[in-house]
Amino acid sequence: MNENLKPHLIDFRISGNTEIGYLAVIENNKNIPFDIKRVFWTYYNPDMITRGRHAHYKLEQILVAMAGKLTVLSEGINGEVTTYVLDTPNVGLYIPPMYWHDMEFSDNALMLSLASLPYDESDYIRKYDDF
Amino acid sequence: MNENLKPHLIDFRISGNTEIGYLAVIENNKNIPFDIKRVFWTYYNPDMITRGRHAHYKLEQILVAMAGKLTVLSEGINGEVTTYVLDTPNVGLYIPPMYWHDMEFSDNALMLSLASLPYDESDYIRKYDDF
Repeated sequence: MNENLKPHLIDFRISGNTEIGYLAVIENNKNIPFDIKRVFWTYYNPDMITRGRHAHYKLEQILVAMAGKLTVLSEGINGEVTTYVLDTPNVGLYIPPMYWHDMEFSDNALMLSLASLPYDESDYIRKYDDF
Repeated sequence: MNENLKPHLIDFRISGNTEIGYLAVIENNKNIPFDIKRVFWTYYNPDMITRGRHAHYKLEQILVAMAGKLTVLSEGINGEVTTYVLDTPNVGLYIPPMYWHDMEFSDNALMLSLASLPYDESDYIRKYDDF
Protein backbone atom coordinates (compact mmCIF):
# COMPACT_ATOMS: atom_id res chain seq x y z
CA MET A 1 0.00 0.00 0.00
CA ASN A 2 1.17 3.50 -0.83
CA GLU A 3 0.84 5.46 2.41
CA ASN A 4 0.63 8.75 0.52
CA LEU A 5 -2.57 7.97 -1.37
CA LYS A 6 -5.49 10.27 -0.68
CA PRO A 7 -9.12 9.92 -1.71
CA HIS A 8 -9.46 10.48 -5.45
CA LEU A 9 -11.81 9.78 -8.33
CA ILE A 10 -10.95 7.20 -11.01
CA ASP A 11 -12.68 6.87 -14.38
CA PHE A 12 -13.12 3.17 -15.26
CA ARG A 13 -14.81 3.63 -18.64
CA ILE A 14 -13.13 1.85 -21.52
CA SER A 15 -13.65 2.60 -25.18
CA GLY A 16 -15.44 0.04 -27.26
CA ASN A 17 -18.61 -0.54 -29.25
CA THR A 18 -20.99 1.97 -27.67
CA GLU A 19 -23.88 0.82 -29.89
CA ILE A 20 -24.50 -1.89 -27.29
CA GLY A 21 -23.85 0.41 -24.32
CA TYR A 22 -20.83 1.23 -22.22
CA LEU A 23 -18.33 -0.81 -20.27
CA ALA A 24 -16.26 0.01 -17.17
CA VAL A 25 -13.39 -2.24 -16.09
CA ILE A 26 -11.24 -2.59 -12.98
CA GLU A 27 -8.20 -4.84 -12.75
CA ASN A 28 -6.37 -5.58 -9.51
CA ASN A 29 -3.31 -3.35 -9.06
CA LYS A 30 -3.71 -1.96 -12.58
CA ASN A 31 -6.19 0.91 -12.37
CA ILE A 32 -6.76 0.50 -8.62
CA PRO A 33 -3.90 0.25 -6.08
CA PHE A 34 -4.88 -3.07 -4.45
CA ASP A 35 -6.13 -6.65 -4.92
CA ILE A 36 -9.88 -7.06 -4.47
CA LYS A 37 -10.69 -9.45 -1.63
CA ARG A 38 -14.35 -8.57 -1.04
CA VAL A 39 -17.16 -6.98 -3.03
CA PHE A 40 -20.42 -5.70 -1.60
CA TRP A 41 -23.33 -3.67 -2.82
CA THR A 42 -26.44 -2.04 -1.40
CA TYR A 43 -29.87 -2.16 -3.00
CA TYR A 44 -33.53 -1.35 -2.35
CA ASN A 45 -32.67 1.44 0.07
CA PRO A 46 -35.74 3.39 1.20
CA ASP A 47 -35.74 7.15 0.60
CA MET A 48 -32.58 8.98 1.44
CA ILE A 49 -30.32 7.29 3.96
CA THR A 50 -26.76 7.67 5.17
CA ARG A 51 -24.38 4.74 5.42
CA GLY A 52 -20.75 4.60 6.41
CA ARG A 53 -20.02 6.67 9.52
CA HIS A 54 -16.77 4.85 10.10
CA ALA A 55 -13.13 4.64 9.10
CA HIS A 56 -10.77 1.68 8.66
CA TYR A 57 -7.32 1.04 10.06
CA LYS A 58 -6.12 -0.88 7.00
CA LEU A 59 -8.91 -1.33 4.46
CA GLU A 60 -8.77 0.42 1.09
CA GLN A 61 -11.87 0.57 -1.06
CA ILE A 62 -13.46 1.85 -4.24
CA LEU A 63 -17.05 3.14 -4.14
CA VAL A 64 -19.19 3.40 -7.29
CA ALA A 65 -22.73 4.71 -7.69
CA MET A 66 -24.07 2.05 -10.06
CA ALA A 67 -27.42 3.86 -10.04
CA GLY A 68 -28.61 7.10 -8.51
CA LYS A 69 -26.37 9.49 -6.62
CA LEU A 70 -24.03 9.10 -3.66
CA THR A 71 -22.67 12.11 -1.81
CA VAL A 72 -19.55 11.02 0.05
CA LEU A 73 -17.99 13.10 2.80
CA SER A 74 -14.46 12.02 3.58
CA GLU A 75 -12.36 13.36 6.44
CA GLY A 76 -8.66 12.72 7.02
CA ILE A 77 -7.00 12.52 10.43
CA ASN A 78 -5.68 16.05 10.02
CA GLY A 79 -9.28 17.25 9.74
CA GLU A 80 -9.61 18.13 6.07
CA VAL A 81 -13.10 17.30 4.77
CA THR A 82 -13.83 16.73 1.09
CA THR A 83 -17.20 16.04 -0.53
CA TYR A 84 -17.46 13.87 -3.62
CA VAL A 85 -20.60 13.43 -5.71
CA LEU A 86 -20.83 10.06 -7.47
CA ASP A 87 -23.62 10.04 -10.04
CA THR A 88 -22.28 8.18 -13.07
CA PRO A 89 -21.54 4.44 -13.19
CA ASN A 90 -18.10 4.81 -14.79
CA VAL A 91 -16.48 6.79 -11.96
CA GLY A 92 -15.29 5.39 -8.63
CA LEU A 93 -13.93 7.00 -5.47
CA TYR A 94 -10.80 5.53 -3.89
CA ILE A 95 -10.88 5.74 -0.07
CA PRO A 96 -7.61 4.96 1.74
CA PRO A 97 -7.32 3.73 5.32
CA MET A 98 -7.83 6.28 8.11
CA TYR A 99 -10.39 8.36 6.25
CA TRP A 100 -13.75 8.74 7.96
CA HIS A 101 -16.52 8.43 5.38
CA ASP A 102 -20.26 9.07 5.27
CA MET A 103 -22.30 8.20 2.18
CA GLU A 104 -25.62 9.94 1.59
CA PHE A 105 -27.81 7.95 -0.81
CA SER A 106 -30.39 9.28 -3.25
CA ASP A 107 -33.58 7.24 -2.96
CA ASN A 108 -32.70 5.01 -5.92
CA ALA A 109 -28.96 4.77 -5.34
CA LEU A 110 -27.09 1.50 -5.66
CA MET A 111 -23.58 1.50 -4.21
CA LEU A 112 -20.88 -0.96 -5.25
CA SER A 113 -17.82 -1.30 -3.02
CA LEU A 114 -14.62 -3.14 -3.90
CA ALA A 115 -12.51 -3.75 -0.81
CA SER A 116 -8.89 -4.76 -0.19
CA LEU A 117 -9.54 -7.04 2.79
CA PRO A 118 -11.98 -9.71 3.95
CA TYR A 119 -14.51 -8.60 6.53
CA ASP A 120 -12.89 -7.95 9.92
CA GLU A 121 -14.80 -6.04 12.58
CA SER A 122 -11.54 -5.12 14.35
CA ASP A 123 -10.53 -3.05 11.30
CA TYR A 124 -13.51 -0.69 11.80
CA ILE A 125 -13.29 2.58 13.71
CA ARG A 126 -16.96 3.19 14.45
CA LYS A 127 -16.72 5.91 17.10
CA TYR A 128 -15.83 9.30 15.74
CA ASP A 129 -14.11 10.16 19.02
CA ASP A 130 -11.77 7.18 18.54
CA PHE A 131 -10.96 8.52 15.09
CA MET B 1 -10.54 -24.75 -9.73
CA ASN B 2 -13.08 -27.51 -9.24
CA GLU B 3 -13.53 -29.07 -12.69
CA ASN B 4 -16.93 -30.41 -11.74
CA LEU B 5 -18.58 -27.05 -11.16
CA LYS B 6 -21.51 -26.23 -13.39
CA PRO B 7 -23.38 -22.97 -13.84
CA HIS B 8 -25.44 -22.23 -10.75
CA LEU B 9 -27.15 -19.38 -8.94
CA ILE B 10 -25.77 -17.99 -5.66
CA ASP B 11 -27.65 -15.73 -3.24
CA PHE B 12 -25.31 -13.05 -1.87
CA ARG B 13 -27.79 -11.30 0.41
CA ILE B 14 -26.73 -10.99 4.01
CA SER B 15 -28.98 -10.27 6.91
CA GLY B 16 -28.67 -6.94 8.62
CA ASN B 17 -30.49 -3.69 9.29
CA THR B 18 -33.00 -3.60 6.42
CA GLU B 19 -34.34 -0.20 7.51
CA ILE B 20 -31.50 1.33 5.51
CA GLY B 21 -31.81 -1.14 2.62
CA TYR B 22 -30.18 -4.43 1.75
CA LEU B 23 -26.62 -5.61 1.40
CA ALA B 24 -25.06 -8.35 -0.73
CA VAL B 25 -21.50 -9.52 -0.11
CA ILE B 26 -18.97 -11.65 -1.97
CA GLU B 27 -15.65 -12.77 -0.52
CA ASN B 28 -12.93 -14.48 -2.55
CA ASN B 29 -13.06 -18.28 -2.21
CA LYS B 30 -15.70 -18.02 0.49
CA ASN B 31 -19.06 -17.80 -1.27
CA ILE B 32 -17.55 -17.89 -4.77
CA PRO B 33 -15.00 -20.51 -5.87
CA PHE B 34 -12.20 -18.16 -7.03
CA ASP B 35 -10.17 -14.98 -6.36
CA ILE B 36 -11.48 -11.90 -8.14
CA LYS B 37 -8.87 -10.46 -10.51
CA ARG B 38 -11.07 -8.22 -12.65
CA VAL B 39 -14.46 -6.52 -12.30
CA PHE B 40 -16.46 -5.01 -15.13
CA TRP B 41 -19.93 -3.66 -15.60
CA THR B 42 -22.13 -2.45 -18.42
CA TYR B 43 -24.31 0.66 -18.31
CA TYR B 44 -26.44 2.91 -20.52
CA ASN B 45 -27.28 0.10 -22.91
CA PRO B 46 -29.84 1.17 -25.53
CA ASP B 47 -33.03 -0.91 -25.79
CA MET B 48 -32.63 -4.65 -25.68
CA ILE B 49 -29.24 -5.97 -26.69
CA THR B 50 -27.35 -9.24 -26.46
CA ARG B 51 -23.81 -9.46 -25.14
CA GLY B 52 -21.57 -12.41 -24.58
CA ARG B 53 -21.67 -14.87 -27.49
CA HIS B 54 -18.42 -16.48 -26.37
CA ALA B 55 -16.91 -19.01 -23.99
CA HIS B 56 -13.61 -19.03 -22.07
CA TYR B 57 -10.90 -21.66 -21.83
CA LYS B 58 -10.03 -20.84 -18.22
CA LEU B 59 -12.01 -17.86 -16.94
CA GLU B 60 -14.63 -18.29 -14.23
CA GLN B 61 -17.08 -15.49 -13.56
CA ILE B 62 -20.09 -14.33 -11.58
CA LEU B 63 -22.79 -12.28 -13.36
CA VAL B 64 -25.25 -10.10 -11.44
CA ALA B 65 -28.14 -7.98 -12.74
CA MET B 66 -27.61 -4.89 -10.57
CA ALA B 67 -30.62 -3.31 -12.28
CA GLY B 68 -33.16 -4.60 -14.81
CA LYS B 69 -33.20 -8.13 -16.13
CA LEU B 70 -30.62 -10.38 -17.77
CA THR B 71 -31.61 -13.58 -19.52
CA VAL B 72 -28.52 -15.78 -19.73
CA LEU B 73 -28.34 -18.80 -22.02
CA SER B 74 -25.50 -21.11 -21.11
CA GLU B 75 -24.43 -24.14 -23.13
CA GLY B 76 -21.94 -26.78 -22.07
CA ILE B 77 -19.65 -28.69 -24.41
CA ASN B 78 -21.96 -31.70 -24.28
CA GLY B 79 -24.73 -29.51 -25.70
CA GLU B 80 -27.02 -28.98 -22.71
CA VAL B 81 -28.56 -25.49 -22.75
CA THR B 82 -29.89 -23.81 -19.61
CA THR B 83 -31.60 -20.44 -19.33
CA TYR B 84 -31.21 -18.31 -16.20
CA VAL B 85 -33.19 -15.16 -15.49
CA LEU B 86 -31.36 -12.65 -13.30
CA ASP B 87 -33.67 -9.90 -12.09
CA THR B 88 -32.77 -9.25 -8.46
CA PRO B 89 -29.52 -7.61 -7.27
CA ASN B 90 -28.79 -10.21 -4.59
CA VAL B 91 -28.45 -13.22 -6.89
CA GLY B 92 -25.48 -14.03 -9.12
CA LEU B 93 -24.85 -16.69 -11.75
CA TYR B 94 -21.58 -18.63 -11.64
CA ILE B 95 -20.28 -19.49 -15.12
CA PRO B 96 -17.41 -22.00 -15.31
CA PRO B 97 -14.89 -22.25 -18.14
CA MET B 98 -16.05 -23.93 -21.38
CA TYR B 99 -19.63 -22.74 -21.15
CA TRP B 100 -20.88 -20.67 -24.09
CA HIS B 101 -22.97 -17.77 -22.78
CA ASP B 102 -25.31 -15.18 -24.28
CA MET B 103 -26.80 -12.43 -22.14
CA GLU B 104 -29.99 -10.70 -23.26
CA PHE B 105 -30.42 -7.32 -21.57
CA SER B 106 -33.65 -5.56 -20.67
CA ASP B 107 -33.45 -1.93 -21.78
CA ASN B 108 -32.43 -0.71 -18.33
CA ALA B 109 -30.23 -3.63 -17.30
CA LEU B 110 -26.91 -3.12 -15.59
CA MET B 111 -24.66 -6.18 -15.51
CA LEU B 112 -21.84 -6.66 -13.02
CA SER B 113 -19.22 -9.31 -13.75
CA LEU B 114 -16.59 -10.58 -11.31
CA ALA B 115 -13.90 -12.51 -13.14
CA SER B 116 -11.14 -14.90 -12.06
CA LEU B 117 -8.48 -13.69 -14.52
CA PRO B 118 -7.10 -10.45 -15.95
CA TYR B 119 -8.18 -9.67 -19.49
CA ASP B 120 -6.58 -12.02 -22.01
CA GLU B 121 -7.96 -12.18 -25.55
CA SER B 122 -6.41 -15.65 -26.05
CA ASP B 123 -8.76 -17.02 -23.37
CA TYR B 124 -11.84 -16.16 -25.46
CA ILE B 125 -13.56 -18.65 -27.76
CA ARG B 126 -15.51 -16.27 -29.99
CA LYS B 127 -16.51 -18.60 -32.84
CA TYR B 128 -19.28 -20.99 -31.98
CA ASP B 129 -17.83 -23.54 -34.42
CA ASP B 130 -14.56 -23.52 -32.44
CA PHE B 131 -16.59 -24.24 -29.31
